Amino acid sequence: MTPFSPAVYADRRRRAAAQAAAAGLSGVLVTPGPDLRYFLGYTPSADTERLTLLTIPADGGSDPVAVVPKLEAHDLEVGAVGGIEAIAWSDGEDEHAVAARLLRPDGRYAISDAAWALHVLGLQRTLPASSYAAVTTALPMLRAAKSPDEVARLAAAGAGADAVFAEIVTRRFAGRAEREVSDDLDALLRSHGHEQVDFTLVCAGENGADPHHEAGDRVIRPGDMVVMDFGGLADGYGSDTTRTVHVGEPTAREQEVHDVVRVAQQAGVDAVRPGATCQDVDRASRAVITDAGFGEYFVHRTGHGIGLTTHEPPYMVEGEETPIEAGMCFSVEPGIYLPGEFGVRIEDIVVAFPSGVPGLADAPDGGVRLNTSRHEVVVVE
Amino acid sequence: MTPFSPAVYADRRRRAAAQAAAAGLSGVLVTPGPDLRYFLGYTPSADTERLTLLTIPADGGSDPVAVVPKLEAHDLEVGAVGGIEAIAWSDGEDEHAVAARLLRPDGRYAISDAAWALHVLGLQRTLPASSYAAVTTALPMLRAAKSPDEVARLAAAGAGADAVFAEIVTRRFAGRAEREVSDDLDALLRSHGHEQVDFTLVCAGENGADPHHEAGDRVIRPGDMVVMDFGGLADGYGSDTTRTVHVGEPTAREQEVHDVVRVAQQAGVDAVRPGATCQDVDRASRAVITDAGFGEYFVHRTGHGIGLTTHEPPYMVEGEETPIEAGMCFSVEPGIYLPGEFGVRIEDIVVAFPSGVPGLADAPDGGVRLNTSRHEVVVVE
Repeated sequence: MTPFSPAVYADRRRRAAAQAAAAGLSGVLVTPGPDLRYFLGYTPSADTERLTLLTIPADGGSDPVAVVPKLEAHDLEVGAVGGIEAIAWSDGEDEHAVAARLLRPDGRYAISDAAWALHVLGLQRTLPASSYAAVTTALPMLRAAKSPDEVARLAAAGAGADAVFAEIVTRRFAGRAEREVSDDLDALLRSHGHEQVDFTLVCAGENGADPHHEAGDRVIRPGDMVVMDFGGLADGYGSDTTRTVHVGEPTAREQEVHDVVRVAQQAGVDAVRPGATCQDVDRASRAVITDAGFGEYFVHRTGHGIGLTTHEPPYMVEGEETPIEAGMCFSVEPGIYLPGEFGVRIEDIVVAFPSGVPGLADAPDGGVRLNTSRHEVVVVE
Repeated sequence: MTPFSPAVYADRRRRAAAQAAAAGLSGVLVTPGPDLRYFLGYTPSADTERLTLLTIPADGGSDPVAVVPKLEAHDLEVGAVGGIEAIAWSDGEDEHAVAARLLRPDGRYAISDAAWALHVLGLQRTLPASSYAAVTTALPMLRAAKSPDEVARLAAAGAGADAVFAEIVTRRFAGRAEREVSDDLDALLRSHGHEQVDFTLVCAGENGADPHHEAGDRVIRPGDMVVMDFGGLADGYGSDTTRTVHVGEPTAREQEVHDVVRVAQQAGVDAVRPGATCQDVDRASRAVITDAGFGEYFVHRTGHGIGLTTHEPPYMVEGEETPIEAGMCFSVEPGIYLPGEFGVRIEDIVVAFPSGVPGLADAPDGGVRLNTSRHEVVVVE
């Protein structure tokens, strides 16, 4: 991905240090993956068992320092935007002892969710008085509020996904296998700026009743509802959108279910208001579906955050009482799944209370969709 | 990958239960990745924050049970070879509490190295009297000794990699960028049975002195030593081989260094003897290089295991006193790296004391190479 300026990464590290201090933590420990991309703009060439760890001490502590396998020290030096002090360890050394020298023996640290068990257990063993919590538990909103520059990239990714939808519905569905349409979506995402495709679900007829059906040999037939859920990364930031189309005219029942989901999706977006919490979005969408008598067929949470990954905090789910903050970007994707019959899901990415995003209207009082494909049932051939 | 029979996976789970008991553990906790492929033949479609966990109680405990996100329960049912009892959890439920009901509150468990910190910390929080160790720490050799069926797949992957080498050296090097040769290696690996390419390092001249240089814009010139290290997965099992070629005739010094590495590699393979430990292989290769005066330029361990991944235990490194067992497969890959000049590395995969492997001679007293490309400097154009 195109890196941001060194100042952006330095500022992110400073904010992490401040958030850690505010949460009573000794610091944040960052391992390869989206967290490390966020704070250093760097990803090792392979995710191996060798420890790479960025330590960000809480405010009042020392400067961030990276621990890196000696073989990758040069990669880090070249790859980390703006540079960072690094300590290289060699094969045969105890890398957890090397990292431990940067930590407070009795400190409490947030550590990347996907840090290997090997390493968190290694640190616990090396510093028995230290303690750890996953970033999602201790600082779940560390990357949740996006800067205007990040929202602009998410908007561009979303526009790419919308262009894919506009193009796919002009193609033939009937007589082709789900997998063929899925392959088309993959190719279209790549042609619309995506360097990585994370999923291209195509679920025809009864397969639509399984929210995570992918795409198989099932041939699409006239009369099928078809759920398409696709996304990936464009210039490092995620897209994720779902539309449910119909091969020929839908029946009254299909239309009714689709209408319920459409209204539920709108209700979820409308729930993005100052003072609202994440669970309010889930409750708003769910209430519409429950009131329509389909509550038991809405079997998943209403949404998830998106950013450097297509799936991250904040989660729009009952029990998530985090207030929605300006710049948070997340999906609103209610669905109804009728076993043996069909399914409907509609999903847009929404940014809360944006301001200062190039090309996006300021909306201090609500959410703005980054997907704008039409919500009505699109009839395909 | 082509699955093995259900009996193979059931037997692996039984052996894990026995090994856990022998090690004084309460069981093995397996998360998505190579461990889950090994014990279930199953991989979720995406590696997300949602917990999928196979619990294998130690001998004398109950049967293995999988914990799976409800949305993926069907995938698991279809994908797990031979089937397994599964408990599905829904969004909003505490998945660690669900998993904890399968564990002993005061148990000690081995858990997959790459299990997310989120989950190991979640289990610790839910069962404060329980304790955990990474599989590599507690049961490092859980997947290390390969069955004849696995060795046969590793041999096929190795033969594919050798075919790639035979083909690449017939192509032009001089005047092309490292990256172009690297792209050729990628395409050749795929054409020789690899469904996944993990690395295709091409390091010309001074870049060869960086053991993990990948491949860049550096144009290869007459007189360059070129290190090529490539591999990936073919039918689920890994290949990994390195050869160092020369554009035109090498100088006396280049030839000398190459000879030292070649002899060191042979010494490492010869060290695979009944009673030998992993560090003996490292010591044997290292002694040759040290005696030749290049000890300080051999900056990494001598090898690593290979199987469902291209990089796993056992490690051929000082301090690794694990005895080499029949069926262990690992690289022997000494190298010499002369900063500013060039580098040489030679790498073969070796299987220890094989017997009963289709197409492979039994060798109860030693190691057998799964790569057979010639070791002398190949002169390319």
